[in-house]
Amino acid sequence: MDRRSFIRKAGVLGAGAGVAATGLAAPAVAQGNITWRMVTTWPKNFPGLGVGAQRLADRITAASGGRLTVQVYSAGELVPPLQALDAVIDGSAEMSHGAAYYWQNKSPALSFFTGVPYGMTTPELTAWIRFLGGQELWDEIYDQFGVQGFLSGNTGTQAGGWFRDELTSLEDLKGIRFRTPGLGGRVWEKLGATVTNMAAGEIFQALQSGTLDAAEFVGPYNDLALGFYQVAKNYYMPSFVESGLATELVVDKKKYQELPSDLQAIIRDVSQAEYDMVSSDFIANDPRALKTLVDDHGVIVRQFPDDIMEAGAKASVEVIEELRNSDDPLVKKTTESFIEALNLVRTRTEQIDAPYTAAREKYLKY
Amino acid sequence: MDRRSFIRKAGVLGAGAGVAATGLAAPAVAQGNITWRMVTTWPKNFPGLGVGAQRLADRITAASGGRLTVQVYSAGELVPPLQALDAVIDGSAEMSHGAAYYWQNKSPALSFFTGVPYGMTTPELTAWIRFLGGQELWDEIYDQFGVQGFLSGNTGTQAGGWFRDELTSLEDLKGIRFRTPGLGGRVWEKLGATVTNMAAGEIFQALQSGTLDAAEFVGPYNDLALGFYQVAKNYYMPSFVESGLATELVVDKKKYQELPSDLQAIIRDVSQAEYDMVSSDFIANDPRALKTLVDDHGVIVRQFPDDIMEAGAKASVEVIEELRNSDDPLVKKTTESFIEALNLVRTRTEQIDAPYTAAREKYLKY
Repeated sequence: MDRRSFIRKAGVLGAGAGVAATGLAAPAVAQGNITWRMVTTWPKNFPGLGVGAQRLADRITAASGGRLTVQVYSAGELVPPLQALDAVIDGSAEMSHGAAYYWQNKSPALSFFTGVPYGMTTPELTAWIRFLGGQELWDEIYDQFGVQGFLSGNTGTQAGGWFRDELTSLEDLKGIRFRTPGLGGRVWEKLGATVTNMAAGEIFQALQSGTLDAAEFVGPYNDLALGFYQVAKNYYMPSFVESGLATELVVDKKKYQELPSDLQAIIRDVSQAEYDMVSSDFIANDPRALKTLVDDHGVIVRQFPDDIMEAGAKASVEVIEELRNSDDPLVKKTTESFIEALNLVRTRTEQIDAPYTAAREKYLKY
Repeated sequence: MDRRSFIRKAGVLGAGAGVAATGLAAPAVAQGNITWRMVTTWPKNFPGLGVGAQRLADRITAASGGRLTVQVYSAGELVPPLQALDAVIDGSAEMSHGAAYYWQNKSPALSFFTGVPYGMTTPELTAWIRFLGGQELWDEIYDQFGVQGFLSGNTGTQAGGWFRDELTSLEDLKGIRFRTPGLGGRVWEKLGATVTNMAAGEIFQALQSGTLDAAEFVGPYNDLALGFYQVAKNYYMPSFVESGLATELVVDKKKYQELPSDLQAIIRDVSQAEYDMVSSDFIANDPRALKTLVDDHGVIVRQFPDDIMEAGAKASVEVIEELRNSDDPLVKKTTESFIEALNLVRTRTEQIDAPYTAAREKYLKY
């Protein structure tokens, strides 16, 4: 997922939405009803994530019988996308919908609540947050800013990227100009790539003109619309730096705690329901989009060569170990909790779930 | 999961709970508040599932601010566990919490909404239900009985079973006395096993006395407490007949539709939140229990030999094809929808998720 692309897109969207925005009322409290503003980091109708933010808002409104109406502002409509969290902190919105790793500048530990290189799968992350101490650490970090985070969606394992040329070994990455952001970008730099970040809307042209040799964005469901298949046919899967991307709902903690307890429960419960819904949307719709890419657009799905997967793991451990050695005790503690939970839950994923799907792939034919 | 064991356990529980049950009030409607009775197929505090039923009830009560209070009756407290659905149909309860495949006698298609041999994983099933037509078919089946089903939990991939002797090939299954229920039992019969079903509480003694050579129940989280490790050390994983077991919340459809729309939304949203919660509970706690079994009780975790996995797939297809050839058009239609969805979503699981976890297992060390 691309931070700068949202800034850029926000600029465009903001221009169009500015007129409507000037007519917005402040949060209404009439007849005991409340209206809360939810700012998001997603363009309107962004598949899976933007759609999920809107549905989450609508479900809170419905479950509360309108006592808490949530009004959604897509990226740039009220504030630029990367000011979404600050908007909640400074009180210009009551809620934000985005991804915790956008706020790494507030605490590098926040990456763990979205996903880190060679990290957890969706069910593993869920288990860490809900049953293995993750939520408590997240609360401790966000308490410093007066906000509270809830999981609100997950893309599942993302695609590794679009490459103009086929990769045969780690050697091929030397100097390759690759667009990928965040901690994943740091891993790719360690593998020899020249990493740049640019807005989603600029990627296509950069690939076409040769400014970029490769780029990753999200996965088939989101990538299809951007047309990368027209200029790069090699679609590498899976990503080893984004094995999942969890989204968050953030609320102003004080205002949240002042709500009647049933409304607090509704926000919490609907966020969890939407976490399931968005995750499920990607499970259903990524394969549909991938089928279109392959059948209609001649895309070739490839896996990274083994030596890249191996070097990627080593580089990812280096990046995470830096966080474990942080001077900030909360970053250190979060990293240690994450690693401990990963080492526990991966035993199930790797020794029970993986052999099942491997056998099914080999033997089950309908 | 064992149907008869719940009947048996229910008998025991029922005796103890009978006194309390006689004092139960009819559903209360006082000051606009409603109390609904939820009957379950689970023993009280049954790990993951019974606990989940209680938590679901409590969350509905909390999110509705007590306007809809849900009172839980564990297996046998109000009705025997395998009469839970009938209790909703005949109006002696408003809700039941169980598994759709317990009601195969009402429609064999109901198996698909719990899980079938060599079937879907948890995220795959979720995607089918929520985005690929599964819920609509489920509604059509349950409409015949005046009820509505919602997903409420999932065990994830279960264990394959406890075997006194190590299995070296398909040959070893000839005549082996194996306790396993349902469609999975029919698959094992096709593999040569002599399949019996018996209550959970009888399995231990049957293994010890030699009446049984092997038995499967759920997975580490539920199996640990039953002590099978004392008499059978070979714990086979994964199960290929229970790649997941989804639980359901069933409501009386007419009474549900008569609720104010916010309460309807709360029931739907909390069920979905609990689907995530229960699934996550198993992801977190199965590996913990397995660690105890291995480290403290000397259990040996094994995978079924390849020829068993292969024959299991063929037998599973035969069992499902029988449903596809059903005279009941709804059973046929459900089977076809299931197979179509499986063939779509498995591409992601097998070609994107599986290579990621395989690489991680091989290369990532903390």
